[in-house]
Amino acid sequence: MSSKKQEKLRFQLLSAQLELARNEDRAVVVLVTGHAGTGKGQLINRLNHWLENRLTEVQALVPSEEDRRHPYWWRYWTRLPARGRIGIFVHGWVGDALFAGAARRLGEGAFADHLKEIANFEVDLRAAGITLVKLWLDIDADIQGQYLAELEADPETRWQATEEKWQRHSQHRVIEQLGKQLRKATATDDSPWLCLDASPGNDLLTPVVEHMIVAMQGTSKTATVAAPSSGRVSIAPAVPQLSDLTGHDSAIDKAEYREQLACAQARLAELARRAVWRGIPVVVVFEGHDAAGKGGSIHRLTSALDARTYRVCSIAAPSEQELLYPWQWRFWQRLPKDGSVTVFDRSWYGRVLVERVEALIDEPEWQLGYQQILDFEDQLLRHGTVLVKLFLAIDSDVQLKRFKARAVTPHKQHKLTEDDWRNRTRWDDYQRAIDDMFSATHQSAAPWSLIDANNKRRARLAVLHEVTMRLVERLQVN
Amino acid sequence: MSSKKQEKLRFQLLSAQLELARNEDRAVVVLVTGHAGTGKGQLINRLNHWLENRLTEVQALVPSEEDRRHPYWWRYWTRLPARGRIGIFVHGWVGDALFAGAARRLGEGAFADHLKEIANFEVDLRAAGITLVKLWLDIDADIQGQYLAELEADPETRWQATEEKWQRHSQHRVIEQLGKQLRKATATDDSPWLCLDASPGNDLLTPVVEHMIVAMQGTSKTATVAAPSSGRVSIAPAVPQLSDLTGHDSAIDKAEYREQLACAQARLAELARRAVWRGIPVVVVFEGHDAAGKGGSIHRLTSALDARTYRVCSIAAPSEQELLYPWQWRFWQRLPKDGSVTVFDRSWYGRVLVERVEALIDEPEWQLGYQQILDFEDQLLRHGTVLVKLFLAIDSDVQLKRFKARAVTPHKQHKLTEDDWRNRTRWDDYQRAIDDMFSATHQSAAPWSLIDANNKRRARLAVLHEVTMRLVERLQVN
Repeated sequence: MSSKKQEKLRFQLLSAQLELARNEDRAVVVLVTGHAGTGKGQLINRLNHWLENRLTEVQALVPSEEDRRHPYWWRYWTRLPARGRIGIFVHGWVGDALFAGAARRLGEGAFADHLKEIANFEVDLRAAGITLVKLWLDIDADIQGQYLAELEADPETRWQATEEKWQRHSQHRVIEQLGKQLRKATATDDSPWLCLDASPGNDLLTPVVEHMIVAMQGTSKTATVAAPSSGRVSIAPAVPQLSDLTGHDSAIDKAEYREQLACAQARLAELARRAVWRGIPVVVVFEGHDAAGKGGSIHRLTSALDARTYRVCSIAAPSEQELLYPWQWRFWQRLPKDGSVTVFDRSWYGRVLVERVEALIDEPEWQLGYQQILDFEDQLLRHGTVLVKLFLAIDSDVQLKRFKARAVTPHKQHKLTEDDWRNRTRWDDYQRAIDDMFSATHQSAAPWSLIDANNKRRARLAVLHEVTMRLVERLQVN
Repeated sequence: MSSKKQEKLRFQLLSAQLELARNEDRAVVVLVTGHAGTGKGQLINRLNHWLENRLTEVQALVPSEEDRRHPYWWRYWTRLPARGRIGIFVHGWVGDALFAGAARRLGEGAFADHLKEIANFEVDLRAAGITLVKLWLDIDADIQGQYLAELEADPETRWQATEEKWQRHSQHRVIEQLGKQLRKATATDDSPWLCLDASPGNDLLTPVVEHMIVAMQGTSKTATVAAPSSGRVSIAPAVPQLSDLTGHDSAIDKAEYREQLACAQARLAELARRAVWRGIPVVVVFEGHDAAGKGGSIHRLTSALDARTYRVCSIAAPSEQELLYPWQWRFWQRLPKDGSVTVFDRSWYGRVLVERVEALIDEPEWQLGYQQILDFEDQLLRHGTVLVKLFLAIDSDVQLKRFKARAVTPHKQHKLTEDDWRNRTRWDDYQRAIDDMFSATHQSAAPWSLIDANNKRRARLAVLHEVTMRLVERLQVN
């Protein structure tokens, strides 16, 4: 390519990137994978040189201990570029499946499952307005072998002919075959695969940059695509509904409450220690009506836990920074690593509750939200997470009474905001959204526990009981 | 305490916290340490219940693999609360020294050294406008033993009488003694220690909350305190000065340049692989005049590195989020873990260059900056980091020529901003700041390499040479 044409292309790429950064309406993810000895490193280096460094991140990942102690997709979710930025992934999520498959560490069925998960993940990225550019670098087996031999013969380039590359050379046929299967399963109209012949001497930069420019000019703005179900989720039979609540629980006197509480906390403490010891991650989700007593219940729960092992995450409206990522991103960020507990004071269910009712998103988005939530929870469950989902429900009149009490208690006044009063006017809409949420997300492996919170003491004991039972179930103790 | 008095106190604490969040002018760090069996967990739980969860972080740290693969203080710097927030540290940096000392894993001298580092760290926190609240929980050895025995006797509380607590009971005398030494070495007028008798039954919450309220109302806003030198830094004898540059290097023709470059990259590639293999972290700092060719040099440097092992961090003005932390925080965040390379395109030296010259901070602040930089680099060096500091210098007329060339090259136009032209008008101020920087921060263990960048090819070769030599030195190879 003439130097002048190259200059022009470089300028176009850079302009597209600066435009992206100005608009901040989407992120770009470039996935570079394929055979070994195809000059991926050099390609990325040259891309990097053409792009504005401050707006580009290269993710060439060797999974850390931290990565392995989280659900598999955590490592990719937490490394996504923010809107306005470009993230270049070397092999990324595709490489994991591909090379495990080639090394026969994944059977055929497991490989196929993995492809479904990849397709799922990419659907989520597109739904969040991320432009995906997927590059497959091809090379003929003989040429590959010859090239590696040449690298090895020259003392100056010998270091590039690594054992890993020779190994992948020996797996060329199976990588070729799995690659085809992979590209077929994950190609979409929005993000097709660009396959390039990367024989030595071929110019890769030009077609890649041209492809990127076109992709970046596309208008893939937050297209709401229906996520294909991962097919693993089964909705449990006894879906709770708010109408199940039979009215106020009987009162319990203070002395008896205190005794039961101490007993329940001691039991829970022991179970939680065992879970931590065994490296099991625990997620407890608190949802509920305003003034249902989530804070007080969380306090009684965490009193039984070792401060070194738990974290409480209070979920409010996303920050400006968080809004630059897919909506699930902030929850992925907050997941516990193995052997620790995260308590969510409100959670990802805001997507189908407050965001739906307050019309912060459109109906197709919150409808899609159910499936996205199921997929997300599926990831946690398959990693072995104990997931406890609690909904603390109160009646409308009880809420009113508590609001009024808050208004006259100095240290509670700041909790009562205009939002609370406004939410109350939408009581019925919320009730509908809550029941819909139960119907759509009450999984056998992660059921909802609907807790009558009209009586605070009873509710706190019930919360401890539910968490305890879920741990008992998992730890297989009595 | 009467329930009414308690309500009042709770309200005062919460009000102080909400005020803190509103102003965002400083952060509060609460450090809770002392003997075992003193109810720290319960105290923190109750504090947490009184505070607004969304604005509070509890850091009860068990160092992770990730923590251990960074310089020691990384784990605390990266966990500091942002301005407007409260961070509660259980034992924290004080506990590490204390319990290592008690277990005789730290000798007397090492313990004393650690105390100096603690004092240093706390000075940095205060200089960044962080309010430090330090709590020491005391208990008599006999009462402690009796209390642990009681916990153990009751099946419901037995889990709390851990082996660790019994061990610390057996070390009571030495913890007492080291604790006194520690408190003496780290108490200051701004952040004294509050020592509380934490015998069972004593109310800790009231005095702690009262102490916090007073501390939070204090006006410790960004007090610029002179940091005591860590005393370890020795300024190397041959301090470079810009006037050392003897004029333009001789030209080098393209063919020869290419050959030398390939050779230098191959050599560097091998050394870098060895460093990665041996788990050595490498930090390369690029500073220099505008248009000195930092970008191009970085490109030639990273071309020799495996994409999985390095990251380029371009440092521009801090983001709004970053401004909520001490100025060093964003550099701590970006440090490489063991076995990886981070290239800084501009760096922490902005504190004593652009921030000084553009008067973004006052003179006492940038003056303090030199010592803070030395302390920061000292941390990296003591962790075993290879630290290469490069300054690419050009003459004023060469800069002008390059600016003009940028203006007519499409893909370079965006690099030329009004800032560049404005900086040029301050040329002499920058020259003075650069020379002062050399004088103050040219350490034997981390010297400055002043590179004549008037000739781009020569400069790129020189950069590769410098990095190579520093790796050779460290790896003890030929």
